[in-house]
Amino acid sequence: MKFVAEALNLTPPAAERLGERNILKNALIKHPFFGDVIEAYKLEKKFGEYEEGTLIAKTKHGLEVVRGYPKIRRALTLYPTIKRRFSGEVALEEKMNGYNARIALLGENIYGITRRGYICPYTTEKARELIDIAFFHDHPDLMLCCEAVGEESPFVPKATYGVKLEFYVFDIREKRSNRPLSIREKERLCQEYSLNMAPILDVVEVEIAHEIAFEVVKKLGEEGREGIVFKDVEMKKEPIKYTSSQSNCGDLRYAFRYFNDYGRDFMFSRIVREGFQSFELKENEREFRERCLRLGMSILQPMVESIREVAEGKKITEKTRLSFSSMETLKLFKEHVRRMGIEAVFGDIEEKDGKYVVTFERMMVSTTDKIKGHLKGGLW
Amino acid sequence: MKFVAEALNLTPPAAERLGERNILKNALIKHPFFGDVIEAYKLEKKFGEYEEGTLIAKTKHGLEVVRGYPKIRRALTLYPTIKRRFSGEVALEEKMNGYNARIALLGENIYGITRRGYICPYTTEKARELIDIAFFHDHPDLMLCCEAVGEESPFVPKATYGVKLEFYVFDIREKRSNRPLSIREKERLCQEYSLNMAPILDVVEVEIAHEIAFEVVKKLGEEGREGIVFKDVEMKKEPIKYTSSQSNCGDLRYAFRYFNDYGRDFMFSRIVREGFQSFELKENEREFRERCLRLGMSILQPMVESIREVAEGKKITEKTRLSFSSMETLKLFKEHVRRMGIEAVFGDIEEKDGKYVVTFERMMVSTTDKIKGHLKGGLW
Repeated sequence: MKFVAEALNLTPPAAERLGERNILKNALIKHPFFGDVIEAYKLEKKFGEYEEGTLIAKTKHGLEVVRGYPKIRRALTLYPTIKRRFSGEVALEEKMNGYNARIALLGENIYGITRRGYICPYTTEKARELIDIAFFHDHPDLMLCCEAVGEESPFVPKATYGVKLEFYVFDIREKRSNRPLSIREKERLCQEYSLNMAPILDVVEVEIAHEIAFEVVKKLGEEGREGIVFKDVEMKKEPIKYTSSQSNCGDLRYAFRYFNDYGRDFMFSRIVREGFQSFELKENEREFRERCLRLGMSILQPMVESIREVAEGKKITEKTRLSFSSMETLKLFKEHVRRMGIEAVFGDIEEKDGKYVVTFERMMVSTTDKIKGHLKGGLW
Repeated sequence: MKFVAEALNLTPPAAERLGERNILKNALIKHPFFGDVIEAYKLEKKFGEYEEGTLIAKTKHGLEVVRGYPKIRRALTLYPTIKRRFSGEVALEEKMNGYNARIALLGENIYGITRRGYICPYTTEKARELIDIAFFHDHPDLMLCCEAVGEESPFVPKATYGVKLEFYVFDIREKRSNRPLSIREKERLCQEYSLNMAPILDVVEVEIAHEIAFEVVKKLGEEGREGIVFKDVEMKKEPIKYTSSQSNCGDLRYAFRYFNDYGRDFMFSRIVREGFQSFELKENEREFRERCLRLGMSILQPMVESIREVAEGKKITEKTRLSFSSMETLKLFKEHVRRMGIEAVFGDIEEKDGKYVVTFERMMVSTTDKIKGHLKGGLW
């Protein structure tokens, strides 16, 4: 792991701390598929200036660092938050609902790296197929920060966007320094290399941004879309996110279906968002009751459904269909999932249009067992 | 603290462990009001067979141990839980909504001990006024396990029961061993010494207990009451509790008013109860929507109200009116509250019917600050 200290330019005492603390984890499955990468580690938590999820790789051509994607913080009320945090023009970008994927060149190949810093075989295969490598030949020091969305997503499957799996670029950054390009530069490069972009819905003066944003978020919510990210057009300030009630409730619907596998903080934070949004929108009695009913149903419907399924002898699972271009990637993905600590069952492989199609079923063991226990007479 | 080891009959290694671990805390404010008690400690957590909240006291007349009240576990579905856990006849006792108070004799005086094992000056004053000391003269080894309920409760103020503050006995136990008396013996003693009892609503065969219980809980809920505790009539088995939807939602209403001062597990557990209850009751569409709306409103109404109050410049507090018989007790109670780590403001003292009446206002600092921060533009 000595190359990690070298790659991060650590002083000897810092290198020692890195070794002592349990913050490095292997991020790579060794296999010819991964080409020139010899070894790769990821940061399990923030270390100095390096974000959690930072990837450090040793390739045949030298050392590489791909910085972790920084956490985007959230406004609970849009006013005065947006006005206080930005100045001049602010872009309202759609926050799409998928999983965070950084796409970068390591050595001579493209890699797809998930939020936590794993090199994911599925994401890598798709990135190699969908992203024009010319971008990286011309800009080897940049990474594409994308939302990977679609129905065939192993992590956040959604039919909302009408695609199987696509990458939507929301930031282009220097992979080594994490410096983001301005929105204009990002747009220019995406256009030049035909990359999908998370839509920029509007660019407005900060003074009126919160008013416009409410309209935009309301409309997005009605279409089942997630929300927006406010960005300084020059990307000199920290972006801020804000989500629709439908998205908050959608998250709750998901979390309460798997209520014992999910963090309580996850649920709590989404509930609190609804309170602040309702307050800021100064809702009338009817709107407020609608929100309360929507919240209550997002919580109880999935939970009762899960209890009913277990009572009928079923297991609680999340089922997705994935398409692989090679059996090799599928095999590597199975290994990857196992390493991530996900308990999953893969179905029979079907060949279709030159792809290997397989169901990927995550077993929600904790929720299943918890419900089963209570239904048999177990006490809380 | 040597007397503690002696009182608990600890072996020398166990006594040593007791000293090493941080599980003893002073439970007494030294003052003539507390009469014969020289020193008292409480267990901060379970230690061997001794429950959390166990009180160990040194009095002029010898050592005393008052066992902590055991945690009563909860059924999430009544069938098959009740049938599986009991046999023969089971009593359905009303679970009242107040705070747990053990009343016991230490030396020659009566003391009121709260759940966590503190000798509470307010509870002690009330116990001395309301409980006939003849009970303890005849039965010095017994303790009265009571729900302290009413409007003038410093911890759980409720108008539901139409009383200022009263003690309702739900268990009579040997204070040293925690052995409970049978329900019949408890009833006999309560009658003999004119003690209020938590109502026994029914005594039924275990086979039909769940059916009867649903009717009973439904009715209790409609009256704003909490729920029931199932008890083996001989008290040979662990009691089990079950609560009404209105009580679960009432708890949520309270917790979300003070959402940043309250534990997330507290909220989560109450939400999960609603899911299991809805499932077991096989609710129709209309009933289910009503439950969802009730749940949603219990969460959002108090939260939005708190946000609105902070936006208007108010602080989030819980205000209760308490009556003290002596200025001494009031002074001691202030000290007690401070030791418990509760931030509170006491109002001006009014003399009324020979009592000292004062408002006791708990400051919910964390919730107030959290809301204030977000309303000023702070991020999550």
